[in-house]
Amino acid sequence: MAHAVVILAAGLGTRMKSRLPKVLHPLLGRPMLLYGVEAALATRPERVVVVLGHGREEVERALSGYPVEVAHQEAQLGTAHALSVAGPLLEGFPGPILVTQGDTPLLRPETLLRLLEPLKAGAGMALLTMELPDPTGYGRILRQGEEVLMSVEEKDASEEVRRIREVNAGAYAFDREVFRLLKEVRNENRSGEYYLPDLIALYRKEGRKVAAIRLEDPQEALGVNTRAQLAEVEAVLLGRLRRRWMEEGVRMILPETVYLEPTVELAPDVTLWPGVVLKGKTRVGEGCEVGAYAVLEDTVLEPGARVLPHTVAQGARLEAGADAGPFARLRPGAVLKEGAHVGNFVEVKNSVLHPGVKAGHLAYLGDAEVGAGANIGAGVITANYDGKRKHRTEIGEEAFVGSNAVLVAPVRVGRRALVGAGSVITHEVPDEALGIARARQRNIEGYRRRQEGRED
Amino acid sequence: MAHAVVILAAGLGTRMKSRLPKVLHPLLGRPMLLYGVEAALATRPERVVVVLGHGREEVERALSGYPVEVAHQEAQLGTAHALSVAGPLLEGFPGPILVTQGDTPLLRPETLLRLLEPLKAGAGMALLTMELPDPTGYGRILRQGEEVLMSVEEKDASEEVRRIREVNAGAYAFDREVFRLLKEVRNENRSGEYYLPDLIALYRKEGRKVAAIRLEDPQEALGVNTRAQLAEVEAVLLGRLRRRWMEEGVRMILPETVYLEPTVELAPDVTLWPGVVLKGKTRVGEGCEVGAYAVLEDTVLEPGARVLPHTVAQGARLEAGADAGPFARLRPGAVLKEGAHVGNFVEVKNSVLHPGVKAGHLAYLGDAEVGAGANIGAGVITANYDGKRKHRTEIGEEAFVGSNAVLVAPVRVGRRALVGAGSVITHEVPDEALGIARARQRNIEGYRRRQEGRED
Amino acid sequence: MAHAVVILAAGLGTRMKSRLPKVLHPLLGRPMLLYGVEAALATRPERVVVVLGHGREEVERALSGYPVEVAHQEAQLGTAHALSVAGPLLEGFPGPILVTQGDTPLLRPETLLRLLEPLKAGAGMALLTMELPDPTGYGRILRQGEEVLMSVEEKDASEEVRRIREVNAGAYAFDREVFRLLKEVRNENRSGEYYLPDLIALYRKEGRKVAAIRLEDPQEALGVNTRAQLAEVEAVLLGRLRRRWMEEGVRMILPETVYLEPTVELAPDVTLWPGVVLKGKTRVGEGCEVGAYAVLEDTVLEPGARVLPHTVAQGARLEAGADAGPFARLRPGAVLKEGAHVGNFVEVKNSVLHPGVKAGHLAYLGDAEVGAGANIGAGVITANYDGKRKHRTEIGEEAFVGSNAVLVAPVRVGRRALVGAGSVITHEVPDEALGIARARQRNIEGYRRRQEGRED
Repeated sequence: MAHAVVILAAGLGTRMKSRLPKVLHPLLGRPMLLYGVEAALATRPERVVVVLGHGREEVERALSGYPVEVAHQEAQLGTAHALSVAGPLLEGFPGPILVTQGDTPLLRPETLLRLLEPLKAGAGMALLTMELPDPTGYGRILRQGEEVLMSVEEKDASEEVRRIREVNAGAYAFDREVFRLLKEVRNENRSGEYYLPDLIALYRKEGRKVAAIRLEDPQEALGVNTRAQLAEVEAVLLGRLRRRWMEEGVRMILPETVYLEPTVELAPDVTLWPGVVLKGKTRVGEGCEVGAYAVLEDTVLEPGARVLPHTVAQGARLEAGADAGPFARLRPGAVLKEGAHVGNFVEVKNSVLHPGVKAGHLAYLGDAEVGAGANIGAGVITANYDGKRKHRTEIGEEAFVGSNAVLVAPVRVGRRALVGAGSVITHEVPDEALGIARARQRNIEGYRRRQEGRED
Repeated sequence: MAHAVVILAAGLGTRMKSRLPKVLHPLLGRPMLLYGVEAALATRPERVVVVLGHGREEVERALSGYPVEVAHQEAQLGTAHALSVAGPLLEGFPGPILVTQGDTPLLRPETLLRLLEPLKAGAGMALLTMELPDPTGYGRILRQGEEVLMSVEEKDASEEVRRIREVNAGAYAFDREVFRLLKEVRNENRSGEYYLPDLIALYRKEGRKVAAIRLEDPQEALGVNTRAQLAEVEAVLLGRLRRRWMEEGVRMILPETVYLEPTVELAPDVTLWPGVVLKGKTRVGEGCEVGAYAVLEDTVLEPGARVLPHTVAQGARLEAGADAGPFARLRPGAVLKEGAHVGNFVEVKNSVLHPGVKAGHLAYLGDAEVGAGANIGAGVITANYDGKRKHRTEIGEEAFVGSNAVLVAPVRVGRRALVGAGSVITHEVPDEALGIARARQRNIEGYRRRQEGRED
Repeated sequence: MAHAVVILAAGLGTRMKSRLPKVLHPLLGRPMLLYGVEAALATRPERVVVVLGHGREEVERALSGYPVEVAHQEAQLGTAHALSVAGPLLEGFPGPILVTQGDTPLLRPETLLRLLEPLKAGAGMALLTMELPDPTGYGRILRQGEEVLMSVEEKDASEEVRRIREVNAGAYAFDREVFRLLKEVRNENRSGEYYLPDLIALYRKEGRKVAAIRLEDPQEALGVNTRAQLAEVEAVLLGRLRRRWMEEGVRMILPETVYLEPTVELAPDVTLWPGVVLKGKTRVGEGCEVGAYAVLEDTVLEPGARVLPHTVAQGARLEAGADAGPFARLRPGAVLKEGAHVGNFVEVKNSVLHPGVKAGHLAYLGDAEVGAGANIGAGVITANYDGKRKHRTEIGEEAFVGSNAVLVAPVRVGRRALVGAGSVITHEVPDEALGIARARQRNIEGYRRRQEGRED
């Protein structure tokens, strides 16, 4: 029978010391909560309800586009109270209800599905447990054989109970009676909170079995309450991604210094040098090399492209045999066609560099179309901004633009045209013509001596 | 009764293979010795004496400003000898004497104070011990119940004694009799050195108790004799700093790649990307983001400022909404007021960029004052150096300086003035005027064809 | 008696998911196979035979220059088959034969030599074993006291045998009978392969002893079948290099982020900041500092030189007191003589900067000779390329080249000559002269107001 999932995501996360609601803290570029939402959706539930509290408008925005409903928990009175606010949405739902937390982003869909098994076998409730070397801070599980008797919160636990190492991992499955039973949960404990584990006793009172599903790898239930735990979970996710891509044939040098997001795609024989940062929809094709400390976001490297160290690219595309860097800056719309070369201290924005273009040193190409085989000298600037709006520059095939030239857009440099070094070009340079704008060189003999004489 | 502290810091540190005296090797930007000195001072002692030997002038300079006295140990004849050279300064000092090493920078003041406890209870001497899984290289502690019988140096130890895992951690408390007893210490051992632990027998001979205080965390007594140990201690200090700032609400991505010094201050909701290096008096305000591989020294980011990847800043200040990078270089005196923007391959030195200034590409601003809203084109240079001295450039509010222009200082570009691209400006450009210095563009038709014809 | 070594290097390495033959995958810049070849050569063998298969032309090229012979294994039918293809080269060789794998790059020559010992004592065969906490995937060793009975491949092992933790580490010594016995090896096992360990039974059938040599550190036998194992082995090699150089007096900050190749040489009191990458024949002299995220290849820093953060150098040389960076790019042939300074966003290629030259900002010096004490202004470009070939620029001692000047090569700027800012210099500037090529500045009053009027 189809199930529903309730994700409890109302907590403030005081220990994060942040203005951001806890469940929105990013892990590899995406809010923590979305990991839980996607795990929930991967169980193919009929409905998903997310219980929100702190910062709910912000959290709701993050959820837009996801097929989930939201419930609002005005005051945070405990996990049982949190689930109860989903009651109006789910009362009468015929199937079992899975309950997870918004701050356990490593929990796998397979694990959630395992929680449903005991219910199929007649249990009223199942909870996820794990054995920890140091159980401090967690609710301890009291068992009698296979039956769970109760889960005791740390602050309510005796010395003896505190020695139990099997703890509550915070995920549950309940049958349809849960919303009725929730009304009987009391808050007579040290925190004055309504606890979900109190449902154990209530189910048992009705003669129903409560089962425990033990996690093999407790890492999966890592909860995020602090920045250190956030970093720990991020490290786990990164470790998984790195291992996955190495299995797919990616070479990583100092892999533990490589950062990459789940949205990134890599191909066999990609080499990632130390400290590479790959974000967003970056795709790196077969045989590409990404140099040390390159930072690429939403950037596509087609097979055989090469990014040298210390390159920063965003929204760029490099075709086969193109290369950029070191110290290249590629901004959105930068397209380097086959064999194009962008060298050190060169910025390219919203410009197409056709095959074989060389822009090797200290240049700015913005809003430009540069024809195949053109050579852009060192220090060349496309002056695309007149203080009000941006204009385009067109540079023809095999054109040669001399060093420190400025092309004042809108302007066109023709096919096989030449631009003299240091020229400011404000009018079209026709095909094959030389455009030049400079004063004749004069030498003033003995200037240095006279200058220094004056100083004395 | 008030105590004194003696810090033994005379060792050469042969295994460091360095010209620098061992205790001056830096840990997170400060000489190792200062960690010990500050721990000593934190115990609120009446006096602190540092025993110096190798490189003592250099070490004394490092200590200047600290309320400590120095004693000189000409020859290094062992730890007992080292303490004895402090005798002339401390003989007659009525209270107990704490003795620590200059190369154990992790030892906490609380631990030093614990060593004083047994003396208050009548012991003549107390020494710090720790239990190690592998005690190789350390002096082993022989006990009879709570009484310490002796500490045996590794080279003097029998096979059986070598199996003892409780070792001497190198810190001591002595009562006022210590300088008298020191004179009885002999050097009849394999090294021919005078050992402080020999005082155990001497105190016991006088019927005085010798107590051991056991360290819970042996890491605290990590001694630095090699570069690897230096790196190990630095890793411990870094781990502490990272944890501390994460607890304060700082988000770190790949925290183990982040370097920061104890003098740095961070605020909640600061994000540090991989490989960030923060040095000196850097302060990063609430909500600021520091991009990957940025290196900031003595730099202030006010709340909401942003540093993009691969930025190097020293002595700079960014106000709210200002941003710099990627590949920005901010040098001392660079001030980016609210919303100012410094982009790639731009260097700013000793210059104020008033609110909203944009200097986005390939520029050098040195000794300049740039008015609010001014736009600095790509490739613009303030030529502030005439080969002899530096001069200032003044750029008015909302001025627009065209690409590759050179402003030859001293010079002023007026309010809302314009400077033509490629112009070399040597005289003032009045408010609202256009300053331009360039030759008219000429096009020479068919130049390329003729040029290539000549080549044939 | 002199021995021979056979290195089995024919495997495809499917799990690497690579076009590159497995044994050519680089570890710290050199093909994995060369580590094994050098270990083999370090045992001073009479002959070394490398058995090649997949990608053998490529692998043979990698081996050129090494005193080894190659044999070709057309089809990969198992390790015994691999050894048999070396038969035609080694049959009749009188001494013992060591057999190792091309994918165990950490195996030390000392270990290989230990395998020869049992043969001297009369054994017919010896194999290397190791004890693993988790032996999964390895052939298990069955012993009777000191005698090895057999090694059972994982896929052929019973449950009971799988529990054995002593495994075959993949290196062997055989006496001269091995090629005769190899002919009796059968492939009646689950993989249908001819296994080297089957020789155990064959030697034993002839009444010969088979000995096991147990590795103390199983890490030494780490085999590379996956990219993750490649990274693991590289981490071991890096760890060894870092430790070695720290013992030699090198200071590393965040050592685990430092990458360096075995060909690099460092001196005492070198400081390496986080993320430094040192490749090829880089040599860093005493007291040099290499800033964070610098990438140096085949670059020499003489004692006292300094590289600031984010510098990329290849084939460059810095003499005492020279410094480069941050954001400097030094290309092959860049020579910075004593006290020369190359600052941010400056590229130097095939140029000598004589003592005291300053090129502090945004410049390109290519194919240039810059005289002692010369000052290169910000934005200065040597236009060394005319679209066809490269030309040289000569700048005299103490010359002063103004900002954004272009020196169109071939050209000479004389001794103590001056070049005006923004000038394009196409002809020689004599000694002490001022070369200038620029239009006079004109100011057009009220331009901004009129311009904006037009817009309305």
